Amino acid sequence: MRATIFHGPFDLRVEDVPDPVVQLPTDAVVRVLRACVCGSDLWSYRGETGRKAGQRIGHEFLGTVEAVGADVRTVRVGDLVVVPFVWSDGVCDHCREGLTTSCEHGGFWGSAGSDGGQGEAARVPYADGTLVRLPKEAVSDDRLLAALLTLSDVLGTGHHAALGAGVRAGATVAVVGDGAVGLCAVLAAKRLGADRVIALGRHEARTDIARRFGATDVVAERGEAAVEAVRALTRGQGAHAVVEAVGTEQSMRTALDIARDGGAVGFVGVPHGSGTGVDLTTMFNRNVALRGGVAPVRAYIPELLPDILDGTIDPSPVFDLTVGVEDVPAGYKAMDERTALKVLITNA
Amino acid sequence: MRATIFHGPFDLRVEDVPDPVVQLPTDAVVRVLRACVCGSDLWSYRGETGRKAGQRIGHEFLGTVEAVGADVRTVRVGDLVVVPFVWSDGVCDHCREGLTTSCEHGGFWGSAGSDGGQGEAARVPYADGTLVRLPKEAVSDDRLLAALLTLSDVLGTGHHAALGAGVRAGATVAVVGDGAVGLCAVLAAKRLGADRVIALGRHEARTDIARRFGATDVVAERGEAAVEAVRALTRGQGAHAVVEAVGTEQSMRTALDIARDGGAVGFVGVPHGSGTGVDLTTMFNRNVALRGGVAPVRAYIPELLPDILDGTIDPSPVFDLTVGVEDVPAGYKAMDERTALKVLITNA
Repeated sequence: MRATIFHGPFDLRVEDVPDPVVQLPTDAVVRVLRACVCGSDLWSYRGETGRKAGQRIGHEFLGTVEAVGADVRTVRVGDLVVVPFVWSDGVCDHCREGLTTSCEHGGFWGSAGSDGGQGEAARVPYADGTLVRLPKEAVSDDRLLAALLTLSDVLGTGHHAALGAGVRAGATVAVVGDGAVGLCAVLAAKRLGADRVIALGRHEARTDIARRFGATDVVAERGEAAVEAVRALTRGQGAHAVVEAVGTEQSMRTALDIARDGGAVGFVGVPHGSGTGVDLTTMFNRNVALRGGVAPVRAYIPELLPDILDGTIDPSPVFDLTVGVEDVPAGYKAMDERTALKVLITNA
Repeated sequence: MRATIFHGPFDLRVEDVPDPVVQLPTDAVVRVLRACVCGSDLWSYRGETGRKAGQRIGHEFLGTVEAVGADVRTVRVGDLVVVPFVWSDGVCDHCREGLTTSCEHGGFWGSAGSDGGQGEAARVPYADGTLVRLPKEAVSDDRLLAALLTLSDVLGTGHHAALGAGVRAGATVAVVGDGAVGLCAVLAAKRLGADRVIALGRHEARTDIARRFGATDVVAERGEAAVEAVRALTRGQGAHAVVEAVGTEQSMRTALDIARDGGAVGFVGVPHGSGTGVDLTTMFNRNVALRGGVAPVRAYIPELLPDILDGTIDPSPVFDLTVGVEDVPAGYKAMDERTALKVLITNA
């Protein structure tokens, strides 16, 4: 089969690799129908994550079950399934408590020896704990497939950020970051009952999606000016709940500064940069909490899936460019140069 | 009257100052019966907080109302009252939501122009929002007065830390710091239903109090050895809820490292030191939350007071040295040299 391989910074190639097979009785093999490129993939693309030449890449995908091991009980050959960005056994302490990303047998797609999502198929460890079945009818609905694909990462991650920020009915929410995760956090905050959602971003195409997802205000300023703008919108108090969906020192600083006293920042941007941007004195004096991390999206799918299926939410507009597997490198280039917001990869 | 005045690092003097009087209709004057020295006072004592010569000091006290302004409704002359370490108006948005430390009219004892608690009397701004009445019979009960005095800061601060750490019934809790706040956090965690409370500390007299307050385990190690010891006690997983009651880089690092994935650190140690000790990558990868800050003890008194009065909890053992007002400087010296845990100051 064909799969995307990392050869070095800015050097991805789509190459022939062996077809995946069931190796353990808990495995499944999934034929990939849709995958996509994540903002966090760009850190690998740029050579900033220590990824080694030869590793696969891609951690967001859905597809059809092609084979299952003898112990697999919850999915069958032919099922349409979505694949979370971390695999998990579903039975350890952390999985049972819903923190599937801390699974004692968990792993990340594209890590050494594993398949990636940006290819034609993948071996899925712990299929029962990892995979979630989707209605087969979705196969013929491109928009719905795109929406369902976001369950593999960005929608669940936006939801995790909103929960971390403590979004509740009636809350004023601010979202730092206008990437796909930030936009999904807007959608998630609205879904959780936020009264007001302030999206911070300066790319009009993206803030237009934010408004479509429920943002009531857009702040295009950055840094101190952004802090002032958010305070002006909130009687000087700041937002009850703030989502940090970027991961830089500056974005974290802004997020903490625009939080209301007693509020919280839900952070899901993978931390990068020289410093952390976390000013403990600000947090201490104003009782601003910081809560978040790698999102246990597997645990959120049962809650979010019905809302996609019945049309309550539609995250599919986060995709603005579609490529085939052979053009994955071009997709990365477009996202790296910010000419694309999020790239959808289609195998059919 | 007599009051403690800061003259410079390690130079506190008890001097004659004008008697306080009602200046605004919302003021009260309180004659101090009991006060104490806080671990955070030591930072001022050592000249590390920018306190200027001539400022008063002391923020934990209780006493008898001696005069009230025309608008004061909730306390009368002769009432026994406890005074939280921040005054607050009781009516602003933050006060109504229970975050009295973010009161828009709030202030801190000993700030320029205000009285301190380590003297014979104090003018209390916003008496209705700030003061809480206590049963007058307590005046004749030294142990009870000492216990009630902790409502002004350390007990409420320990409770805030426990809440920030997410202590719930059945939780495994770890407390970093064996000062009075750490010990009160042990008491608070037990009160909130913690199943297991691991106290980190190496001073036997203090860890004995921790055990008396409900600690089930004591870890005397520090740094990496402390992390290993806590993990060994928790099936390798760490504590659901961790209290950070020191405020140094090392203590914060330890607190985050001993938290269970998905758990939280409740921090109430005033942040000090060159770095913050906050490793965002640790927080991110393991979904460990950080929540805390200056404790709104005023808001907690109605919940904690009944438990002191009926004997459910007795925080009075945190005091191990009693001095009169004239000997406040000696009390600081004893705490600075760690020969005393917490110094009680008595005016009667």
